[in-house]
Amino acid sequence: MKNGDKLLKYLDELKEEELLLPVFYTSDKVVMLDQTKLPDEKYIDLKTSAQVAEAIFDMKVRGSGAIALAGIYGVFLAALESDGDYTYIEKMRDKLINTRPTAVNMHKTVKKICSGLQSIKRENLINEVEMRSIDIMKKQLEVEKKIGLNGAAELEDGDRILTICNAGAVAGFGFGGRTLSVFRTAVEQGKNIEIYAAETRPYLQGARITAWELKKFNIPVTLITDNMAGAVMQKGLIDKIITGSDRLAANGDTANKIGTYLMALAAKEHNIPFYVSTSKYNIDPDTETGEGIEIEMRDGREVLFYKNKRTAPEGVEAVYPAFDITPNEYISGIITENGVLKKPYKNKLRELLIL
Amino acid sequence: MKNGDKLLKYLDELKEEELLLPVFYTSDKVVMLDQTKLPDEKYIDLKTSAQVAEAIFDMKVRGSGAIALAGIYGVFLAALESDGDYTYIEKMRDKLINTRPTAVNMHKTVKKICSGLQSIKRENLINEVEMRSIDIMKKQLEVEKKIGLNGAAELEDGDRILTICNAGAVAGFGFGGRTLSVFRTAVEQGKNIEIYAAETRPYLQGARITAWELKKFNIPVTLITDNMAGAVMQKGLIDKIITGSDRLAANGDTANKIGTYLMALAAKEHNIPFYVSTSKYNIDPDTETGEGIEIEMRDGREVLFYKNKRTAPEGVEAVYPAFDITPNEYISGIITENGVLKKPYKNKLRELLIL
Repeated sequence: MKNGDKLLKYLDELKEEELLLPVFYTSDKVVMLDQTKLPDEKYIDLKTSAQVAEAIFDMKVRGSGAIALAGIYGVFLAALESDGDYTYIEKMRDKLINTRPTAVNMHKTVKKICSGLQSIKRENLINEVEMRSIDIMKKQLEVEKKIGLNGAAELEDGDRILTICNAGAVAGFGFGGRTLSVFRTAVEQGKNIEIYAAETRPYLQGARITAWELKKFNIPVTLITDNMAGAVMQKGLIDKIITGSDRLAANGDTANKIGTYLMALAAKEHNIPFYVSTSKYNIDPDTETGEGIEIEMRDGREVLFYKNKRTAPEGVEAVYPAFDITPNEYISGIITENGVLKKPYKNKLRELLIL
Repeated sequence: MKNGDKLLKYLDELKEEELLLPVFYTSDKVVMLDQTKLPDEKYIDLKTSAQVAEAIFDMKVRGSGAIALAGIYGVFLAALESDGDYTYIEKMRDKLINTRPTAVNMHKTVKKICSGLQSIKRENLINEVEMRSIDIMKKQLEVEKKIGLNGAAELEDGDRILTICNAGAVAGFGFGGRTLSVFRTAVEQGKNIEIYAAETRPYLQGARITAWELKKFNIPVTLITDNMAGAVMQKGLIDKIITGSDRLAANGDTANKIGTYLMALAAKEHNIPFYVSTSKYNIDPDTETGEGIEIEMRDGREVLFYKNKRTAPEGVEAVYPAFDITPNEYISGIITENGVLKKPYKNKLRELLIL
């Protein structure tokens, strides 16, 4: 078989699965969905590992899983370019890592593919990288499906579920990430569900990406602005809430997209179950509680604009905390690849990390 | 004196007060700030009472006070057009009322100006309408200043105050409405305060109007998206919250712009005082609790767009509850023209209505 043929064969098999792949490979190039343009579907051709790194740096791809997937393809292209020189692959691995210093999933993934390459024979180098890449993709897709199955068991026919941001297929390895996996699995089980998606300012990932994915999966979706989360609960329109998670402290306190915390507070007030969906890759056992998670402050200018249109008058400043912390007592369950954890979380999260 | 001269003299006196008038009169026409275009300052010339009614219908003016002010000018132009025929004025009064069926403040105001006109001599009709108009404008400005004084007494030097939507000068009679009056009075008293304004999707009244007014009044303002309300409290950036109010039930439960309720929930969690500013005109003694206030559902299409740009893909639906209910137990104080009411509210609100 030629270089890349096993990867092409694997991707060909995936076609029957109705995936939404954020990055994939054709016979001579990597193709990346430009997520900054969604819901318009624009794709970027990437012919070299350096181009992949540049696209990651430019944030054309987002979501911890999808960034890891892009990293895998970056290393694979580097192997093709390497002429059997593993030091070249390692150089490109470091270049990929440096594009996004906080993308821990991608860092772990590319390091894993590149581990011990010096002991692989020159002529086997590409094949080894290709096999390892396919192996990780398979495992990660399996994790998404398990999260989907475990979460779907919590849903009932007729449920109306509120979510925020996008922890979906194009944020992951293509099945449905951490949250959309739950929704599509419930639908595949024959449950009629309806999703309320908060638009998620300032980047509108809910409006632009989650609503677009749900349309693709034929799941009914109703959009709201973020400030309506309380009102729709007061109107009795919401049965459950499921959001993704950026990072979990050891006690289950969860950092996620700004707005998540407000939903959790309102959920408690209205006795609505509030879940976060996650995997062991997002648990940070070294941070004891949410207070130890620093809230990243991004450039406030991003709040002042929408699609290059200024909303506030000149001279007005803004702040942009990128996420907020939901204390574990507001979380009814943590959906993971190993089941749905219930309170108290600390020991159960520790066990999950050991598995 | 010629018709309109007393009104012109009154408006001339107001020039020393640094008001932001949403509607005013010049020698031959009414001029209205087009609030749909803010922060761009565009003005519309209205030469007839019918044109004033049309501008109200088209929502060029917003805010219960400002709509009432526009109604006053509509009746005044109708008097000028009437040739001493009070039935013409009454016809235009009804036309003005019908432009906005729920604008109770405007309804009451124009009815008050037009009450008993049949007993006024033909030749005195314009003068009578003019005098009554000036009288109401004076009283309403006085109410805004009293609310400002009472609210400002609750603020301390250095306070950072979160607000939502716009209950400001151009939503009222020009001083600062129900909420901005508090901020500008505190600053006039020498207190250094800073306002955090939530942008207030979908119409962005916070970004477009509140931020613009605060710049005009030289009060420091920082913009956030609505979903950041919890995060800025977690970061310790907020000392107090003050919002306006659409309507208060007899027990103090308050309907206000969607998002207000989420702020109140987070305020309680973080022990931050949460105030609503209002006046007796907004109290509905016939509705016992917030459960009796129907949440108006507006056209969901308004959620799908951001400044005329579609955010979600075609085929996605949306809902738009226009406000939410904040239960009285979350409200630390109700700022009114007759002082700041503290819990329990029921009897105090009833007393306020009798005054």
